Amino acid sequence: MTILLSNDDVARLLTMPDCIAALEEAYVELAEGRGVNRIRSDCLVPVKDRPEALYGLKSMDGVIPKFGIGAVRIDSDVVTWPKRGNTMVREKVPAAGGRWVGLVLLFSCDNGEPLAIMPDGVMQHIRVGATSGLGAKYMARKDARTVGILGSGWQAETQLQAICSVRAITSIRCFSPTQANRETFAKRMTETLGIEVKPVDSPEAAVKGVDVVMCASNAIDNIYFERWLEPGIHLSSIKRPEIEIAALKKCDRVLTHSHEATPMHFTTKDLKVVEKTEGKGWKVAEEFDFAKMPTLPEMLAGRYQGRANDREITCFMNNLGMGYQFAAAGSVVYRKAKELGVGREFPTDWFTQDVHP
Amino acid sequence: MTILLSNDDVARLLTMPDCIAALEEAYVELAEGRGVNRIRSDCLVPVKDRPEALYGLKSMDGVIPKFGIGAVRIDSDVVTWPKRGNTMVREKVPAAGGRWVGLVLLFSCDNGEPLAIMPDGVMQHIRVGATSGLGAKYMARKDARTVGILGSGWQAETQLQAICSVRAITSIRCFSPTQANRETFAKRMTETLGIEVKPVDSPEAAVKGVDVVMCASNAIDNIYFERWLEPGIHLSSIKRPEIEIAALKKCDRVLTHSHEATPMHFTTKDLKVVEKTEGKGWKVAEEFDFAKMPTLPEMLAGRYQGRANDREITCFMNNLGMGYQFAAAGSVVYRKAKELGVGREFPTDWFTQDVHP
Repeated sequence: MTILLSNDDVARLLTMPDCIAALEEAYVELAEGRGVNRIRSDCLVPVKDRPEALYGLKSMDGVIPKFGIGAVRIDSDVVTWPKRGNTMVREKVPAAGGRWVGLVLLFSCDNGEPLAIMPDGVMQHIRVGATSGLGAKYMARKDARTVGILGSGWQAETQLQAICSVRAITSIRCFSPTQANRETFAKRMTETLGIEVKPVDSPEAAVKGVDVVMCASNAIDNIYFERWLEPGIHLSSIKRPEIEIAALKKCDRVLTHSHEATPMHFTTKDLKVVEKTEGKGWKVAEEFDFAKMPTLPEMLAGRYQGRANDREITCFMNNLGMGYQFAAAGSVVYRKAKELGVGREFPTDWFTQDVHP
Repeated sequence: MTILLSNDDVARLLTMPDCIAALEEAYVELAEGRGVNRIRSDCLVPVKDRPEALYGLKSMDGVIPKFGIGAVRIDSDVVTWPKRGNTMVREKVPAAGGRWVGLVLLFSCDNGEPLAIMPDGVMQHIRVGATSGLGAKYMARKDARTVGILGSGWQAETQLQAICSVRAITSIRCFSPTQANRETFAKRMTETLGIEVKPVDSPEAAVKGVDVVMCASNAIDNIYFERWLEPGIHLSSIKRPEIEIAALKKCDRVLTHSHEATPMHFTTKDLKVVEKTEGKGWKVAEEFDFAKMPTLPEMLAGRYQGRANDREITCFMNNLGMGYQFAAAGSVVYRKAKELGVGREFPTDWFTQDVHP
C-alpha cells in the first residue's frame, strides 16, 4: 500500500525533537558520502494576466540509504514580491482555489517502491526549524536561556520550538513590524511552549541582552545589524539577506547549511523581474566569502568546532533547503504512520507499472 | 479533481502524431525562451544486498506556459549493467514487487493546481520516438521509403511508429542479437504498422541500402560503424555510444536533442561502479565536439537547416530526455482525458494545502 497523508497527520507524527534527531543522523551520512542530495531547482515563467507574479515549479531530491528512503519535494507556486511597510517580501499566493501546492513523495531506495505522498507544508516548517535547532545545539552557549526573535510568521513558530528543544530556554522576546501579528504570535507561543513570549515594539528591544537571536522573517532586506552584536550570542538566520554583511564579518564563526546554488531556469522575459527582487540576495555573495563557510553537515561529522568559548559570537545561516531533509523527516513520518496505521491507503500498483520506463 | 491515469489510459489518449505535433510546438517555445526545462538529475546510491546494482532517484521538470502545464517526471529505479552477448547493457530491474516505478505529475502553471498523476512508461516510449520522429521529419530525405532498425525492444517499437508518422515508409528491416526477439518484434510490428518488417541476421543486412537507419538499443557500446555509411541516409540514435565516433565525423549534419549535462549525485562508494559503466558514454565526449552541435529546438525555431540536398548524410542524436517533453506530451493526455472523462478522480484538496509551504 502507498499511503496519502495530510498536514494534520504530519503534525501529529513529526515532533521537533524527532526531526532534529533524524536530521542529525542524516547529515552525518551526507558528510561521510553515504547519502546524496540533489539541490533545489526552480523553473520560473510568467503568469497569465498577472504581470506582478511568476509561476515557479520547484523540486529537490535526496536519498538516505541508512534510512532506506528517497524523497522528492515539489512546489507549484504562484509567487509575488510585494512591499510590506519598508520591506520587500516574497509571498506565495494560494492560487489553487485558495490553497497552496507542495508535495513530498517518498520512495524505498531498497526496491524503488512508492511509499507515501503528503503535502509539504507542515514538514517544511518543522525541517527549517529543526535545521536551525541543530545549528544552535552545537553553536549556542550551553547555558543559553533567553531568545530574541525577529518575525512572527510560521517560520518564527518552528524556530522557537527548535531552540526550546535544544536549550533550556526560560524567556523569549518577539518583534515583527505589525503590532497585532506579534501580539497574537506571542500569546499563542506562550501557550504552546509553556515559556513566556513577550511582544516588544522594536527589533532592538527584542535582541538586546539575549543569548540567542533568531531571524525568521520573509524579508529580503537586512533586519539584523552589526551595531546590535553582543559577545557570546548565537545568531541564526533563515535567509541570506536578513543579517547585515558587516555583522556577519564580525562573527567569530559563521556556518551555513549548504553551499550548492539553486539552478534557476527562466523564460527570457522573467529575468528582469527576478533580478529586481531575488537578485538582492545574490549581490550579498559578492561582499562576503560565503563559499569558505563550513557547513552544518561538516560540523556534525566532527570536522568543525561549533563554539570554542562563551565569548565567541556564532552564526548559523540556514540558507537553502535540501530535498535530503525531506527524506530524513519523511522517514520518521512514514515509519510512525505505518506503526500507527495513519493515512489513506492506495494500492501500490496505482503508482507502479508493468511497462519498462 | 486531480486525475490518476494508467499506462493503458495514456496509450489510448496519446497518439504518435499528436505527440510529435505537441513536441514541435513546445520546442519552438523553448528555443524562443518562452518555455523552460530543468534537466534530468540522478541520485545514485548502493542497494542493500545487491552489490551489482545501484538505486537511482531520477527527476526532471519542465514548464510550457503556452500549454498552461508544468510537469515533473520521477523515476525510482534499481539499475544493473549486465552483459548481453558481447554488449554491456543498462537494465532497470522491476524491483518493486515485479514492477517498475516512474511517475509524471502535471501541474497548472496558471494557478499551480495539481492536474494529474500517471505512470511514465508509455509516455516515455512515445516521447523518445516522437523526438526522433521530429528529427527525421526535418532531416531525412522527403522521399525516404526504407528503414533499417538496430534493436527490437520497446524503444525500437516507438522509433518505427515515429518514422512511419513523418515519412511514407514502405519497408523495414530489423536486426537485434537474439533471433527470437527480432522475429517476434518483426511479426508484431508488421501487424501494428501495416508495413512489412523483415527480421535479418546481421546489422549490415539491416542497414545496407536503406534511407533511414535507426539505432534503438540499450547498448552502451557502438552498434553502427563508419564503414556502413551511404550517401543520402538519415541516421538516428537514442544513446550517444550507439554510433561510432568515426561515423559521426563523416556526417554532413549532426543535430542533438539537448546540450545540458545530467547532474549526477553519487555516494562516494558508487563512483567506481558508474565510471566502469556509464562512464563509457562520457569518454566519447572527448573525441567529438558535441558541444558545437545545433539542437532540435534550434532547428525547429528556424535557426538551422536540417538537410540541404539528397546526398547529405544527416544524423539526429536523441541523447538526453527533458522534463519539458513530459509537459508537452502530458498536456495532450490531460486535455483528452478531461474531454473523454478518462481517469480515476481524486479531490484536488488531497494534493493541495491550507498551510503555507
